[in-house]
Amino acid sequence: MANVPSIKLASGYEMPVVGFGIWKVPRESCADTVYNAIKLGYRHFDGAWDYTNSAEAGQGCRRAIDEGLVKREDLFITSKLWNNYHKREHALQQAKLENEAWGLGYLDLFLIHFPIALEFIPFETLRWPCFWSDKEQTKVTPLAKVPISETWGALEDLVKTPQNQDGFVRSIGVSNFHTQLLYDLLSYAKIQPSVLQIEHHPYLTQPELIAMAQENNIAVTGYSTFGPQSFLELGNVTAKNATPLFETSVVKSLAEKYGKAPGQILLRWCTQRNIIVIPKSNNVDRLKQNLECCSFDMTETELKQISELNLGLRFNSPNTLQRPIRIFT
Amino acid sequence: MANVPSIKLASGYEMPVVGFGIWKVPRESCADTVYNAIKLGYRHFDGAWDYTNSAEAGQGCRRAIDEGLVKREDLFITSKLWNNYHKREHALQQAKLENEAWGLGYLDLFLIHFPIALEFIPFETLRWPCFWSDKEQTKVTPLAKVPISETWGALEDLVKTPQNQDGFVRSIGVSNFHTQLLYDLLSYAKIQPSVLQIEHHPYLTQPELIAMAQENNIAVTGYSTFGPQSFLELGNVTAKNATPLFETSVVKSLAEKYGKAPGQILLRWCTQRNIIVIPKSNNVDRLKQNLECCSFDMTETELKQISELNLGLRFNSPNTLQRPIRIFT
Repeated sequence: MANVPSIKLASGYEMPVVGFGIWKVPRESCADTVYNAIKLGYRHFDGAWDYTNSAEAGQGCRRAIDEGLVKREDLFITSKLWNNYHKREHALQQAKLENEAWGLGYLDLFLIHFPIALEFIPFETLRWPCFWSDKEQTKVTPLAKVPISETWGALEDLVKTPQNQDGFVRSIGVSNFHTQLLYDLLSYAKIQPSVLQIEHHPYLTQPELIAMAQENNIAVTGYSTFGPQSFLELGNVTAKNATPLFETSVVKSLAEKYGKAPGQILLRWCTQRNIIVIPKSNNVDRLKQNLECCSFDMTETELKQISELNLGLRFNSPNTLQRPIRIFT
Repeated sequence: MANVPSIKLASGYEMPVVGFGIWKVPRESCADTVYNAIKLGYRHFDGAWDYTNSAEAGQGCRRAIDEGLVKREDLFITSKLWNNYHKREHALQQAKLENEAWGLGYLDLFLIHFPIALEFIPFETLRWPCFWSDKEQTKVTPLAKVPISETWGALEDLVKTPQNQDGFVRSIGVSNFHTQLLYDLLSYAKIQPSVLQIEHHPYLTQPELIAMAQENNIAVTGYSTFGPQSFLELGNVTAKNATPLFETSVVKSLAEKYGKAPGQILLRWCTQRNIIVIPKSNNVDRLKQNLECCSFDMTETELKQISELNLGLRFNSPNTLQRPIRIFT
């Protein structure tokens, strides 16, 4: 089974550098997908309230535990707070519901999903894919006036400590934050953020953001490592127009040189720079490949060659809505 | 005399869209420079604690007032809070000192200069050009843990209102903020920011940031409208390597078409999009030209042609220090 290294977080806990991202894993197949991934050696799963498949993912985990494949403490489960629940009482409640959905006793990591608060939508009103707007994008959800400091304070209160035995979260962090807001967060955080999760692939390298986080002992998780590929099924036009990363000459030639799949080259480009990855696949062979991406090292020059593909091209952005939310600038 | 339009701020006050930026105006000549600028028709001056020439600029203003050239209320004076004074008591004190230095009874606009707090340096320890580090950059000033919310709260307490007759500031705002931190600020601000001041020129257009500010009724002031030019005297390498904006074919051909100076084309590119400008010049003819930059209109297509020069090229950034401060990502 693949040997997946871990990164020690600011919280003191270890986080495996390769995980399985369950964004867009259909609810119907999610329990089996997660169970089979554990069989293949996956120990780290990246979920979110917004993905609406946590209960099923938790089922898959519990089956593996019940069958003795793994123990709870071998697994690393991430979930996230959605934008409508930034107010203190809603954040506490959403985290509790999310922890119950996974049904594993605790969450390893809980992140603020986006640095923007939207108006509260009652918990029983589940809407898919998310709540930026209604399905037809004719009605956008209004912003809510909730400071990040309030939301972060709620996350701090979720953390289990000697003083807070009711806490059910081990580490906390943020997602899609840029440096100005991170510096501000660091100025008032009583518990340091352990992780920053961001879109990261050779078309969007963000070296300053990554350097700032790592300098401040915030581990970086990159999502959408394969770039445009993740966004094709969402009908993203920019993604359709971009050259698939697997087909770029630098990735192809490195894959050939090292005898690896192009996906493994992209994943190793991340993990070799201490960036955690959370790829997804529906294909067993690729799932195995993805997990085995830490078994070789590229040269510094080769890592840089991949980074030079940078175009500043962002695929996951809410600024395309009818009333755009301009958080990435 | 040039007819300079104004923008109505969120505070209700009017701000002339063309001002005179006194960054790098030598202390020795600053009083005369400002006095002469008023004679030419300038009414809006953009200063800062960091520029260390406020007392001299104030002298120039008072001379013009004493001679009956203008009344105090005809002038619009901006100053800014430097990074070492983000703590509440320091912010209040620095603003007071700055208001006394200008000696005009009140400040029209007071901005947080950068969204980063550095350790306090006693007020008597003036160091030029600024306090990011010592002169040799061998010792960098440590960051201080002061949330922006604390600093903003101090600025709010400076504003003169019916309830706060001791206030000596009319409008408040921020500088060098990006959207995530602005959204957060808007979530807790009791007094809305009136102005966002940012680096803005055709090599750094930041359309999303400007749209976000203007959508939220925050007027945008662009600094360094002429791009690299302002930074040549500071030995900025990127500035040296960039083609001067005045020499780009689009700016040259528009200057010819409209019978204007290239600088006027760049300034009008801003003001026509409701962006306030604060150029500086040591040359009387250019000072006049700059003030007269609102007397013609370009077409939408021409404005876009200028915007297409964008390279994402930032000249004013503290990330080149020995211990970089990575606020622009």
